[in-house]
Amino acid sequence: MPEYRIDFQPIGSRVFTNGKESLLALAQKAGISIAALCGGVGVCGSCKIRCIDGELNPVQPEEEDEFSPDQLAQGWRLACMTVPCSDARIELPPESLTTMQRLQIDGLPKEIVLATNLHLEKFSLPVPAQDDLRADWERFSELLSNSGEACRDVSLSVLTQFSIKMREQDWSAVAVFNGAGEILGFLREDQDCYGVAVDVGTTKMAAFLVNLFNGKIEAKSASMNPQISYGEDVISRIAYANQGKIQQKTLQTSLVEWVNQLVGSLCASAQVNPDQIMDFVVVGNTAVQHLYAGLPVRQLGEAPYVPAVRQALNFPAREVDLVGAPGARVYMPPNIAGFVGADHLAMLLASDILGRQGVILALDIGTNTEVSLLKDGELVSCSCASGPAFEGAHIHAGMRAAPGAIERAKFYDGDWHLATIENQPAVGLCGSGILDVVAGLLESGQIDSTGRFTKRAARKVLLPKGDAIILVPAAKSGTGKEILVTRGDIREIQLAKAAIRAGINALLRATETKAEEIDQFIVAGAFGTYLNLDSAVKIGMFPTLPAQRFQQIGNAAGAGALEMLLSNDSRKKAETILAKISYIELTTDPEFMSSYVDAIGFSDDRKVV
Amino acid sequence: MPEYRIDFQPIGSRVFTNGKESLLALAQKAGISIAALCGGVGVCGSCKIRCIDGELNPVQPEEEDEFSPDQLAQGWRLACMTVPCSDARIELPPESLTTMQRLQIDGLPKEIVLATNLHLEKFSLPVPAQDDLRADWERFSELLSNSGEACRDVSLSVLTQFSIKMREQDWSAVAVFNGAGEILGFLREDQDCYGVAVDVGTTKMAAFLVNLFNGKIEAKSASMNPQISYGEDVISRIAYANQGKIQQKTLQTSLVEWVNQLVGSLCASAQVNPDQIMDFVVVGNTAVQHLYAGLPVRQLGEAPYVPAVRQALNFPAREVDLVGAPGARVYMPPNIAGFVGADHLAMLLASDILGRQGVILALDIGTNTEVSLLKDGELVSCSCASGPAFEGAHIHAGMRAAPGAIERAKFYDGDWHLATIENQPAVGLCGSGILDVVAGLLESGQIDSTGRFTKRAARKVLLPKGDAIILVPAAKSGTGKEILVTRGDIREIQLAKAAIRAGINALLRATETKAEEIDQFIVAGAFGTYLNLDSAVKIGMFPTLPAQRFQQIGNAAGAGALEMLLSNDSRKKAETILAKISYIELTTDPEFMSSYVDAIGFSDDRKVV
Repeated sequence: MPEYRIDFQPIGSRVFTNGKESLLALAQKAGISIAALCGGVGVCGSCKIRCIDGELNPVQPEEEDEFSPDQLAQGWRLACMTVPCSDARIELPPESLTTMQRLQIDGLPKEIVLATNLHLEKFSLPVPAQDDLRADWERFSELLSNSGEACRDVSLSVLTQFSIKMREQDWSAVAVFNGAGEILGFLREDQDCYGVAVDVGTTKMAAFLVNLFNGKIEAKSASMNPQISYGEDVISRIAYANQGKIQQKTLQTSLVEWVNQLVGSLCASAQVNPDQIMDFVVVGNTAVQHLYAGLPVRQLGEAPYVPAVRQALNFPAREVDLVGAPGARVYMPPNIAGFVGADHLAMLLASDILGRQGVILALDIGTNTEVSLLKDGELVSCSCASGPAFEGAHIHAGMRAAPGAIERAKFYDGDWHLATIENQPAVGLCGSGILDVVAGLLESGQIDSTGRFTKRAARKVLLPKGDAIILVPAAKSGTGKEILVTRGDIREIQLAKAAIRAGINALLRATETKAEEIDQFIVAGAFGTYLNLDSAVKIGMFPTLPAQRFQQIGNAAGAGALEMLLSNDSRKKAETILAKISYIELTTDPEFMSSYVDAIGFSDDRKVV
Repeated sequence: MPEYRIDFQPIGSRVFTNGKESLLALAQKAGISIAALCGGVGVCGSCKIRCIDGELNPVQPEEEDEFSPDQLAQGWRLACMTVPCSDARIELPPESLTTMQRLQIDGLPKEIVLATNLHLEKFSLPVPAQDDLRADWERFSELLSNSGEACRDVSLSVLTQFSIKMREQDWSAVAVFNGAGEILGFLREDQDCYGVAVDVGTTKMAAFLVNLFNGKIEAKSASMNPQISYGEDVISRIAYANQGKIQQKTLQTSLVEWVNQLVGSLCASAQVNPDQIMDFVVVGNTAVQHLYAGLPVRQLGEAPYVPAVRQALNFPAREVDLVGAPGARVYMPPNIAGFVGADHLAMLLASDILGRQGVILALDIGTNTEVSLLKDGELVSCSCASGPAFEGAHIHAGMRAAPGAIERAKFYDGDWHLATIENQPAVGLCGSGILDVVAGLLESGQIDSTGRFTKRAARKVLLPKGDAIILVPAAKSGTGKEILVTRGDIREIQLAKAAIRAGINALLRATETKAEEIDQFIVAGAFGTYLNLDSAVKIGMFPTLPAQRFQQIGNAAGAGALEMLLSNDSRKKAETILAKISYIELTTDPEFMSSYVDAIGFSDDRKVV
């Protein structure tokens, strides 16, 4: 019996097979959760994979229905229809994975050349004695000046740690300097130094603990933004902060504590002492950046929505009570405008946008969706208020991407076929689920081009507030109650997708570009990565383009932060990108509103642009 | 009838007289409280004054008893015996003034050339608009770079204030830079900028609010150190801090709050907004400096008693939560050693010690007494633990210099003649009072050379714990109880004066100098200024020297702090003084202990050295 080795990428799992099981079954055996709405019979198209290397069984008729000849040529297959005939390397695109697996995917894999500017100095000092009464710091600074080193003004916290560490470590240590000659902290000879990259989103935060000697990610973690209790979107948090100094300070403190908690748990899991952390890179949208740094946000909430600061900030971590080495620094990359933040710049950096050829559109879907378009070496950017519907908010049965959330849905054979996170009984809908449902309703003619339910709508019910369909009957639901999708839900998705599409259209107009001229369409962010592209195109959120022009790149803001943590060259590269960006303020663009209204319906895509 | 104008210096009060009243009476009419133990009959010698200019009545026999011919030639008189015969300028030495008046005396009057390195930049910015979406700070930094100005890294707190002030002040302001190109804050065009000099003592703090445009002192204030509740001397506070991080932080916080309170009251009285304060100079002993800056103090309490830092510190005020302009700086001058602090260096600066000719001894009496000796252009310094007896602690009826404290005492005509602060009924003894009492007991033979009461002791009583004398009978006391001076009190003063004298002797030995070679003997600090020099010499605390070699210079540490606030040149001058100092650690000096034991008794002065 043959035995083939199958590598699943980018997860890096390896399984062996006798060539009789499908890739879907093999992946499931290896503990990898691939979405399979139809139960593995080649109907739903949710288990897409790509063969990078190796031989598989011939393409089946179900796959010819699902993929274009181009896609098949590129190696796209359905996992449930595919059996390996040799060793093989299989790429699992994030949209085919269920949520728990997805957390392991952190943007584009990319080689980053370590260039941190850190500089180490190992030393031993004579111990204070009756005939040598020099101050602790005097011993060290005289040693430095004797060896021709320069040491800039040193901070009180560094001085404090110095005296304590010298006594703990028998007057030997390794001093860590940055490129500006500032001392960041002191280590034992056997300790490495670390950095933390943080992507602070409106609802979620992701953080990475990295060894700054070798670039290795030692730990990563994600958690929900505690500020959700002060308003679910940026505008309501700005309004809260504007109530007074105490309120603004409360928001800052909750952010700082949140980051500190995450850093604490990263350190604990990697057995790193927080005072080994020498550098932080924190990215977020402009409001998050301002709140985190304690900058005023009032002007972000009032026309013409200017930031207090646009340039990169580089300040001592202790200024925002961030836990790290006594001289640790925080780098916050520049933001682009009041509503296009450093996180978007980090995404553009991580996607290497300036290194790509042709017309490139890149967007990051969130409560605010930031969109950038590269043409002829110049970038235009805008922001559109797409709302929190794709995060499950304002949706009747909406929920965040947690176990039991419906994340994939397809209507065929007269019924809904659903996949939930961790295959738990369905309890609600997360963003990618509601997107699929709306696309399915439209495709099967259950809603019309204005979003109203038609006569063909299956399991329609009349609620006090309007029509709805029963997506999951009470008997099958995890809550014991029906899971409904209402007219109001469809309206929310219409508004959200219209905002995104109108933003894309505004950039196309500004650059006199037709949608079909877009050579690469890059979608970043958690929701953007796990959404079903077919559905997004079907409802008109994205323009109709050949499938291979789309690229879902994961948490690219986090990846960009990581890159800037590991390399000062990347910080410079981000500045280069920034210098090429023109920002368009849509709220005062007269054509934007009509383009937005046009995009609310589900008319044929060609007419929208 | 003639009318003469009398100027009292350095208070600056002016009175007119017909030439019939004594200077004592004239001063009292002008509201100046001159000490006069004997009621103005020329006996007690407590109302010494010096005529700088003008004619007075001939010298009286009482004055010939009190002063040497040299002193008389210099213009020294007794105010009670002196009547003006022309316009006159009269110097009132601090020791002749009672306490309330004394607070107005702030070290040596001295011309300081204003040299602050501050640099102002007035500007107006275009207001954000739809066609100008630049960030607030971008507007300003582009303006700066257009005008060829450089602006170093700017702190978050400055950025925060900037955005708020621009909107409050209609986008016009004056930026304040320091010599390093850092922005300290922003003013309205009609605002001046200010600095604060603070002398933080073990028991008291003095602070001055100064206009940095013209050098004028706008307000000054003093208050008690709240840390007294954590231990009355430095060693016990270090022990408290060593209990843990929380305890050390508590001490720091109490210091910071104390300084902030005093700064707040200075600002209120001068109608200055705290954000107009651009610079602080804080001096204190080494332990106070370490606690204030949050530096570890454990090593200050353990041999060989080295400081964490000796060099000058210059850090953002916000790092110690000090209230001022957002970029305000704190300068803490270098300390000399573990127990000789920046306050002593400030005193040496204020006394212009390097500008003086001959052998100079300068000392600052406190719980620790710091002593420096200048000879042939080089300085040696030491510190001796003189204890808190001169601050009224550990004395049976001891108290601080508050109303009702006996501050002058003389024994003649078989009884004690006393003066109290504000002429209130006596309630206890402050430092200068107990010093006078011990000197009076010795002079009148009521104690012997070992400090024991003799048969001649008046009103002697036997207490359970030993002998005592009744200084004030119950009937005359403000408390209704007898005010006693015990054998224990005399012992405390013996120990204190022995420590000071042994310190002086150690420096004389180290420089191979005889006491009589001291050309100028400078006594600084509150107690040092108000003590009776005759008494100090009589009990052997100071060596016997011609009276005119002594100089009492008041709160010279505060004056030095003020000087460093007003002039960067003075900061350099302090560094020059520091470079010339050799420090002698007395605790491990084998000769110190025998010199100390020798100095406890009241034997003839010549033998002691």
